[in-house]
Amino acid sequence: MLYVVIMAGGSGTRFWPLSRSSMPKHMLTIVSEKPLIAECIERFAGSVPPDRILVVTTAEQAPSVRQILPQLPAANVVAEPVGRDTAACIGYAACLIRHRDPDALMAVLPSDHVISPTRRFIESLWAAQETVLKRDGLVTFGIRPSWPHTGMGYIHRGDQIDVVNSFKVFKLRRFREKPNLELAQQFIDTGEYYWNSGIFVWRASTILDEIEEYMPEHHRLLTNIVAALGTPEEQKVLEENYPKFQRISIDFGVMEMARTVFVIEADYEWDDVGSWGAVPKHHPTDLHGNTVLADFESIGTSDCIVVGERGHLIAGVDVQKLVIVHTPDATLVCGRESTGDVKKLVEHLRKIGRTDVL
Amino acid sequence: MLYVVIMAGGSGTRFWPLSRSSMPKHMLTIVSEKPLIAECIERFAGSVPPDRILVVTTAEQAPSVRQILPQLPAANVVAEPVGRDTAACIGYAACLIRHRDPDALMAVLPSDHVISPTRRFIESLWAAQETVLKRDGLVTFGIRPSWPHTGMGYIHRGDQIDVVNSFKVFKLRRFREKPNLELAQQFIDTGEYYWNSGIFVWRASTILDEIEEYMPEHHRLLTNIVAALGTPEEQKVLEENYPKFQRISIDFGVMEMARTVFVIEADYEWDDVGSWGAVPKHHPTDLHGNTVLADFESIGTSDCIVVGERGHLIAGVDVQKLVIVHTPDATLVCGRESTGDVKKLVEHLRKIGRTDVL
Repeated sequence: MLYVVIMAGGSGTRFWPLSRSSMPKHMLTIVSEKPLIAECIERFAGSVPPDRILVVTTAEQAPSVRQILPQLPAANVVAEPVGRDTAACIGYAACLIRHRDPDALMAVLPSDHVISPTRRFIESLWAAQETVLKRDGLVTFGIRPSWPHTGMGYIHRGDQIDVVNSFKVFKLRRFREKPNLELAQQFIDTGEYYWNSGIFVWRASTILDEIEEYMPEHHRLLTNIVAALGTPEEQKVLEENYPKFQRISIDFGVMEMARTVFVIEADYEWDDVGSWGAVPKHHPTDLHGNTVLADFESIGTSDCIVVGERGHLIAGVDVQKLVIVHTPDATLVCGRESTGDVKKLVEHLRKIGRTDVL
Repeated sequence: MLYVVIMAGGSGTRFWPLSRSSMPKHMLTIVSEKPLIAECIERFAGSVPPDRILVVTTAEQAPSVRQILPQLPAANVVAEPVGRDTAACIGYAACLIRHRDPDALMAVLPSDHVISPTRRFIESLWAAQETVLKRDGLVTFGIRPSWPHTGMGYIHRGDQIDVVNSFKVFKLRRFREKPNLELAQQFIDTGEYYWNSGIFVWRASTILDEIEEYMPEHHRLLTNIVAALGTPEEQKVLEENYPKFQRISIDFGVMEMARTVFVIEADYEWDDVGSWGAVPKHHPTDLHGNTVLADFESIGTSDCIVVGERGHLIAGVDVQKLVIVHTPDATLVCGRESTGDVKKLVEHLRKIGRTDVL
């Protein structure tokens, strides 16, 4: 049986000031009228029943996530005591799933990406499931890169070994970290590289075996947590052990070392909505190239992304290529080519103690 | 005796969104911690007693003006029933003053300019008073232009006829409307042109005689108003007649035709604070050339003018040469070279019925 694990532990930096520590990207309605996480869950309607969908989020965000996702059993919204990156999150989720079903497969995916069409996405999961059932190992999905993105990790595919339901399946040659522009262009020119989607399919038991092999300290802490599952000490043990996880991603911790990794070419549309610059992909622009999700009036203003709320007018006079975002307690004005630096701004705000706006 | 008439009827367009119809420029604290009109009145402390200072404003603004200027007798804050440009305003003020003192002189000046040093400014009024007592006629003040400003009217001076207390006094050759850049540069190159300060000194009776000659309809309406002064019908007659004034400035209506106009060279520092672009003249900039009157944090942001209020953070990421102004219900982002167009934006907002933010 396939379980789905949605990772929803974002810290809300890239879409500041709309995103905050209590309102991360997956709760925002920047792509459609629904929060990204609601869109994410709805993709599984009719394919995976709600009781087999787990959302892993922070203790702070769990109540809002449960409100946004009333179709999920409340217990399926799992709160990490503290955020410790994806290796801990995935390991913990794998333990919970294996506890329910020792043979379970699990698909792991981020909560805040846009995928279309849904049908093809679901089919890719079935293809991955079939690959795992046939060959064991770990399946990852590669997105065909549309431009030399320097903010993405890349997957270098190896030989093609199969076609499953018209999805090409490859061996993995190598994961590559975020490249510079020149290297990214080289990657694209070869035609052998994919963007790393952060979507995986494997057996819960397999990933836990891999964690045991490559991350023994993680495995030790997970074993403590598993021993308490279903006992009165469960929460206490979780809270004692969880903060001890090293902050490390599943990519660094396991995927780069693992021996049996397959890459399935994901031929659906995919966007990680990585910054304010992604908003125009999902909304029409006006005659002057402005993407407007706000009460906005302007003179001589073009190619801007404007986001605000009702009851507050944003006015532009002779400005070009800006991102303007207004919220009740903070306003951002950012060069359109520099939306990746919003993260740096948030780090700066954290450093100077401006938790009032984070 | 010299009376002072402060014209304070601004409609609050150039400093939108901080200025509004109920909060025009002269009430703003964009230059110092005091509203411009308070600074304006304080210039006369020790020189002209408060009972000889009149402020002419709108009915809507009069209560706030009285609050800002507690040192003035309440009756000296005069409310025009409707705004009808400077000829009506000055004519009405001249009637009120002549009614009190038939021989009175009056100095007329805008409420929202910055002048320094005060001592020299007051001395210039005394020089004008002496000129009027000696020669009769109308005195205007010319500001030595520091750059080819296309938003100012210019005064072409004629022959020098006097020096009074070290102020040069000239005959007027001609008033010139706002020029284009080329013409403005020509004006400056001759050394014979001044900016028109909008400051005047004359006898109340003289300006009324001039209005009678060049603006007979204005004079007829003023005569109606004067006839009712001090009677129970005063307010009623005022409200009946005032709306009938044509909207016309004293410059067009009288000054350009009048035969005896003198120009005194104003050698004090003067700024009409004509737009957001003027703010940096009155405040220090940070290391990156930003002028900040706000809670502001930034990365890679330079040469911006940022105005906001407490409790709202404005953040800049990689933006240059912008004016960013935040108020509770409206935010402006404007190119720094385009602050003159804020007026056009306000006209646009008026046209589309956005009185909620005007």
